[in-house]
Amino acid sequence: MSVSRRHVLRGAIAVGTVAATPAMAAAAPARIERWGVHEIVLQGPSQGNSFDDVHVAATFTCDGMQVTVPGFYDGEGVYRIRFSPPELGRWSWRSQSNVEPLDGKAGVLQCIEPARDNHGPVRVTRDGYHFAYADGTPFRQIGTTSYSWALQSDAKCVETLATLRTAPFNKMRMCLFPNVASVATNPFARAGAGLHDWDPARPDPAYFRRFEDRIRRLGELGIEADLILYHPYDAKRGYSDMTRSDDERYLRYVAARFGAFRNVWWAMGNEYDAILTKTVADWDHLFEVLQAADPHDRLRSIHQITVYYDHRKPWITHASVQNGAAVMDDVPAQLHRSFALKPVIFDEVLYEGNSDKRWGRLKGEELVERFWWGTIGGTYVGHSETFSDDHNADTSWLGQGGKLIGTSVPRLAFLRRILEAAPAPGIEPIDTWGGYHLAGKKFEYYLRYFGAARPSEWAVTLPGRANDTHGSYRAEVIDTWNMTITPVDGVFAMSPRDAYDFHDPKRPTLALPGTPWQAVRLIKV
Amino acid sequence: MSVSRRHVLRGAIAVGTVAATPAMAAAAPARIERWGVHEIVLQGPSQGNSFDDVHVAATFTCDGMQVTVPGFYDGEGVYRIRFSPPELGRWSWRSQSNVEPLDGKAGVLQCIEPARDNHGPVRVTRDGYHFAYADGTPFRQIGTTSYSWALQSDAKCVETLATLRTAPFNKMRMCLFPNVASVATNPFARAGAGLHDWDPARPDPAYFRRFEDRIRRLGELGIEADLILYHPYDAKRGYSDMTRSDDERYLRYVAARFGAFRNVWWAMGNEYDAILTKTVADWDHLFEVLQAADPHDRLRSIHQITVYYDHRKPWITHASVQNGAAVMDDVPAQLHRSFALKPVIFDEVLYEGNSDKRWGRLKGEELVERFWWGTIGGTYVGHSETFSDDHNADTSWLGQGGKLIGTSVPRLAFLRRILEAAPAPGIEPIDTWGGYHLAGKKFEYYLRYFGAARPSEWAVTLPGRANDTHGSYRAEVIDTWNMTITPVDGVFAMSPRDAYDFHDPKRPTLALPGTPWQAVRLIKV
Repeated sequence: MSVSRRHVLRGAIAVGTVAATPAMAAAAPARIERWGVHEIVLQGPSQGNSFDDVHVAATFTCDGMQVTVPGFYDGEGVYRIRFSPPELGRWSWRSQSNVEPLDGKAGVLQCIEPARDNHGPVRVTRDGYHFAYADGTPFRQIGTTSYSWALQSDAKCVETLATLRTAPFNKMRMCLFPNVASVATNPFARAGAGLHDWDPARPDPAYFRRFEDRIRRLGELGIEADLILYHPYDAKRGYSDMTRSDDERYLRYVAARFGAFRNVWWAMGNEYDAILTKTVADWDHLFEVLQAADPHDRLRSIHQITVYYDHRKPWITHASVQNGAAVMDDVPAQLHRSFALKPVIFDEVLYEGNSDKRWGRLKGEELVERFWWGTIGGTYVGHSETFSDDHNADTSWLGQGGKLIGTSVPRLAFLRRILEAAPAPGIEPIDTWGGYHLAGKKFEYYLRYFGAARPSEWAVTLPGRANDTHGSYRAEVIDTWNMTITPVDGVFAMSPRDAYDFHDPKRPTLALPGTPWQAVRLIKV
Repeated sequence: MSVSRRHVLRGAIAVGTVAATPAMAAAAPARIERWGVHEIVLQGPSQGNSFDDVHVAATFTCDGMQVTVPGFYDGEGVYRIRFSPPELGRWSWRSQSNVEPLDGKAGVLQCIEPARDNHGPVRVTRDGYHFAYADGTPFRQIGTTSYSWALQSDAKCVETLATLRTAPFNKMRMCLFPNVASVATNPFARAGAGLHDWDPARPDPAYFRRFEDRIRRLGELGIEADLILYHPYDAKRGYSDMTRSDDERYLRYVAARFGAFRNVWWAMGNEYDAILTKTVADWDHLFEVLQAADPHDRLRSIHQITVYYDHRKPWITHASVQNGAAVMDDVPAQLHRSFALKPVIFDEVLYEGNSDKRWGRLKGEELVERFWWGTIGGTYVGHSETFSDDHNADTSWLGQGGKLIGTSVPRLAFLRRILEAAPAPGIEPIDTWGGYHLAGKKFEYYLRYFGAARPSEWAVTLPGRANDTHGSYRAEVIDTWNMTITPVDGVFAMSPRDAYDFHDPKRPTLALPGTPWQAVRLIKV
């Protein structure tokens, strides 16, 4: 994933792969950048069901740290163990297996400084409500969804990746199981031509190999891959309706196969509550299985249609939410933080597009508005679009990827630039109860958003008590639709107005253009 | 609690009290109405610390049912066991104790039909989001708060009860420990005159006897007593800062003493997160203690200042919430149902009054608006008022009770009448995501609320698919402030408008007066 962008379409694979031999421990150690992938390749049995019958893992140690990483069977007698070293230094490893050829192998690797654009995996920040890469760089989530882009033809995937290269999105939600019409439709070995003629005990290595190529290519673009492990849109094939033991095998397989890639997030279910074959207790169990199977501890969440999952549960790292109304104002957006006590991403808020369905016919303005209100509520929002000449085939970006034609995209790029310039770790809601519609970092940086309203002025009144340091602020009027930032002359020299607020008594208001989609940014001077 | 209202101020006690004797089982059984209180009085030791050293309980059995009810020490060698029979029939009981005089006593009681105005305790309805009395009568919560009314002089309590007799409130939030200036300030035996000279091991029976008299008098008025067990407003005496074992004794005492009264609810903490001596794990533990100590299984919740408690936890029966902004619209109100998956009461939404504090200076209109938005969100709201000539002494209704002078009260009575006439079990939010601001019962009864907006017409468009039964509706325009209900001539004969909505194509709109605080009620004809 440290490979430069010009290589993206030529299949660069940012993985250090070694074939382990007994002599390896004595050889010069492999050099792997921090947060890269070290892959151990072992030869073992190819008879029977190697997915179930053979267990292999390796324990990596360095300086008192110890990580045990499960491996996976990649077909034709090949077993792979993928490890992403979290710290610099010399790591040694030793394999354990229930079959002789895979057991007791050993080696070393030298974890070296990461390349410049490798910031590590995204984690929740210490304050609990935002994200940052492992090296501390803030991650300002501007997500999109293309359910089955990774399952389309290579040519279509190239087109999607070319689109993403210039798009503002840094996270892609994508299904592991096919959703809309796709080229790759068989995650499991087929035993016949019927819809149900597939064997959950035999994941098809070619399907997953293809999928992981897409994950890597997203990584090369600096895009997180939010992998949707189950969804309810394929009841006829039933990939999301497996038995518990088949589910466990599947989760352990994807965790071993994909978990070492630093851009992987786990989206356990899309509209989990529409998958009628699983109960909440089942989901809880599957999270425990996934968490235990993933020593890299990637981010985990789950997304609902109607019944909110309890995102306070310990295996959830952040709330992934679908809600069509909650980001029409900062108050309901912020409430999701109060409930989850974790970062909140509104991964689905209706889509921009020309669908006749209510969920897919937002105007660009309406989708951008949702991103802004979500921002003011201290949360993050996700995009997709449904434009299609043929909605039955679901040829839209949401279904298959390809090109983006909506008007929201450049405005989301504009928003992303504003977020990148905002204080770390992220935009915080400010006194939501007081109806200020303000966010930022108190006494340092403020964003005020006005949505569809058309004010011609704003009373520059900020919450703060008499003992606070009020300071002076410069102001900019931001047109979030026309993408302009207009500085306001002079500064606002603030002092207490009453017991709750402060303002500049000589300059209590600021002029606004009387058009919709305005915001104001105040920065302390 | 079956005593008629004219007795209220003369100390009527709706409890059947018997002094148990060995011969009792042979005597004619006591007759206790269903959901009334049967009290067994036993004589036992008065030496040592009877609160800690003596355990007594009785097991009540009837027709395969069995309930074990802990007793409590009421001072001077008197032990009481209070049981509220949940079912009609002949109940026999037998006591267990670690001291001889209290052990092995036995008796019978005949549980008879309840009096006309005894509907039993309030429970959560089967749909999960509303309340009803045990006999099925819906309970439409219109609550108020007067923290320390019960701890004032008898004369002041008489005044408060007289106010409540004609007020719309059917639930009172009240603190067990003193908050503002009070006459009764010593829940525990005093060992000296200093602030900390009290003994948590010795609850003062006189204090609790006095308090339970207030609970009974509320019951006689048909008002639920929502007992706040801890609060953060008295750090100097520290009643909410006891050790774990002292807390456990206290909770077991109040559960045994008050739990049989059918109008009791448990409000574990008011602004629990401002009580700095307890962690969330402590609160969880105290709920488990309370639940185990309360065989009558009264409603249980807890209320926050900042950090929402997780109301999905199994011992919570409904969400009790403080939020100053969430009931300014139906969307955020409804979200609390999605999070808790239980009934929601916004017990604190700022108060009507003349305080200079932001939390106590709402206009009547603003408080009534919060009740209406909460209703449209499928939730319930609580009132209080802060009017006072002397805010330091906290002589307001919120602090000490007395008279109500706010303008919201008659409007809340008007709202209560509307709710009483609405479908059971309660007002449901309808398609909140769609921005309809509608609630009621789909295809039968609708309320549309407009808040502070001043529309002069409303497009009578209701969500529903082509296959639904659309029917015809009569309409009324409700002025929620001026308390008028104006019928609209004729009916709206509904038919599909598009894939999502239906309306009357001949009559798509309804005229409104262009004033604030309007609502519309549609009832199927």
